[in-house]
Amino acid sequence: MTLTQQCTIALPAWIGPLLESREFDYATDEGRMAFVIALARQNVRAVTGGPFAAAVFGTGDSGPVSVGVNLVTSSGLSLAHAEMVALSLAQQALDDWDLARHGELCLVSSCEPCAMCFGAVPWSGVRSLLCGARKADAEAAGFDEGDKPAEWAQSLRDRGIAVTEGLLQDEAASVFDYYRERGGEIYNSGGGAGSED
Amino acid sequence: MTLTQQCTIALPAWIGPLLESREFDYATDEGRMAFVIALARQNVRAVTGGPFAAAVFGTGDSGPVSVGVNLVTSSGLSLAHAEMVALSLAQQALDDWDLARHGELCLVSSCEPCAMCFGAVPWSGVRSLLCGARKADAEAAGFDEGDKPAEWAQSLRDRGIAVTEGLLQDEAASVFDYYRERGGEIYNSGGGAGSED
Repeated sequence: MTLTQQCTIALPAWIGPLLESREFDYATDEGRMAFVIALARQNVRAVTGGPFAAAVFGTGDSGPVSVGVNLVTSSGLSLAHAEMVALSLAQQALDDWDLARHGELCLVSSCEPCAMCFGAVPWSGVRSLLCGARKADAEAAGFDEGDKPAEWAQSLRDRGIAVTEGLLQDEAASVFDYYRERGGEIYNSGGGAGSED
Repeated sequence: MTLTQQCTIALPAWIGPLLESREFDYATDEGRMAFVIALARQNVRAVTGGPFAAAVFGTGDSGPVSVGVNLVTSSGLSLAHAEMVALSLAQQALDDWDLARHGELCLVSSCEPCAMCFGAVPWSGVRSLLCGARKADAEAAGFDEGDKPAEWAQSLRDRGIAVTEGLLQDEAASVFDYYRERGGEIYNSGGGAGSED
């Protein structure tokens, strides 16, 4: 029996030029979120996935340790949500599945995590999470957040992970409108609401 | 700024020979679970990850569409739980992020899913989930299941995904003891309880 032995998650080719061409204020939460929202918008423009992006940052004003965009439709992998991509690429960059061994790393996401990404955050070792758009924004755009515990943010805080919600919320949510205007697929499984993010 | 652009999840080299050398009854739930438990045991023996394995099956008595084992420590990726690996490799094999378009596929896992894998199941398109060991078994072995909704199985059923729990539970849980006997790392982030599976 011969089975598929491996799969690869790869960022779109446009990521490099975008990182080179734009200037963001990586020293502030707002600047980091603005950067992530720009990534999400470019992901829609380039038709490389859903209207979601994320990045992992260290302390200080240096650039991201890693970035991620939603790659579900382009990679063919349902786990390729922006947060999963960003966390995995940070771990790849640091050659360690536990980011907690590399300082106080922060996951910045253009949207509140879905049930899968919520579950993935504690395993990754990040010490904080910054979210832009909220569940209601994603759902209004037709995306499904999955079944998270109602007190999902408190659950993370109880594990020592700081959570900030609703940072540049309207700007982050506007990328969902842009996705819809461009006729983006509300990808999903089996024809129900689409999964995010 | 140059960032890591991709990461790869690859099965250990021992998978091929094991699939060739062993005979399992793929027509029954018990046979499929016995196969998955054998994968988990071999993953411990080969020191390629935690004591967890999974596979995706179609209907009938043919072999698996894909297999997965826990590869967190060997891949350096905290998302490389057995279920995530099996689901991703099934999607890679079928060149489609939505397994629901390929018949009634079933995810067989040697352990109840953690919070992340629970969240990933609806996004994958599998129509059923078979679990071996239970949360209490994993926790007794030092692994952390994360914060799933209390009614996680019902939540999946409400989405049209059949769930069977506790199939060959003792045999599945015995792999956790084997892992401990062999001195396996209770991998985790930040020194708390380890994540599974």
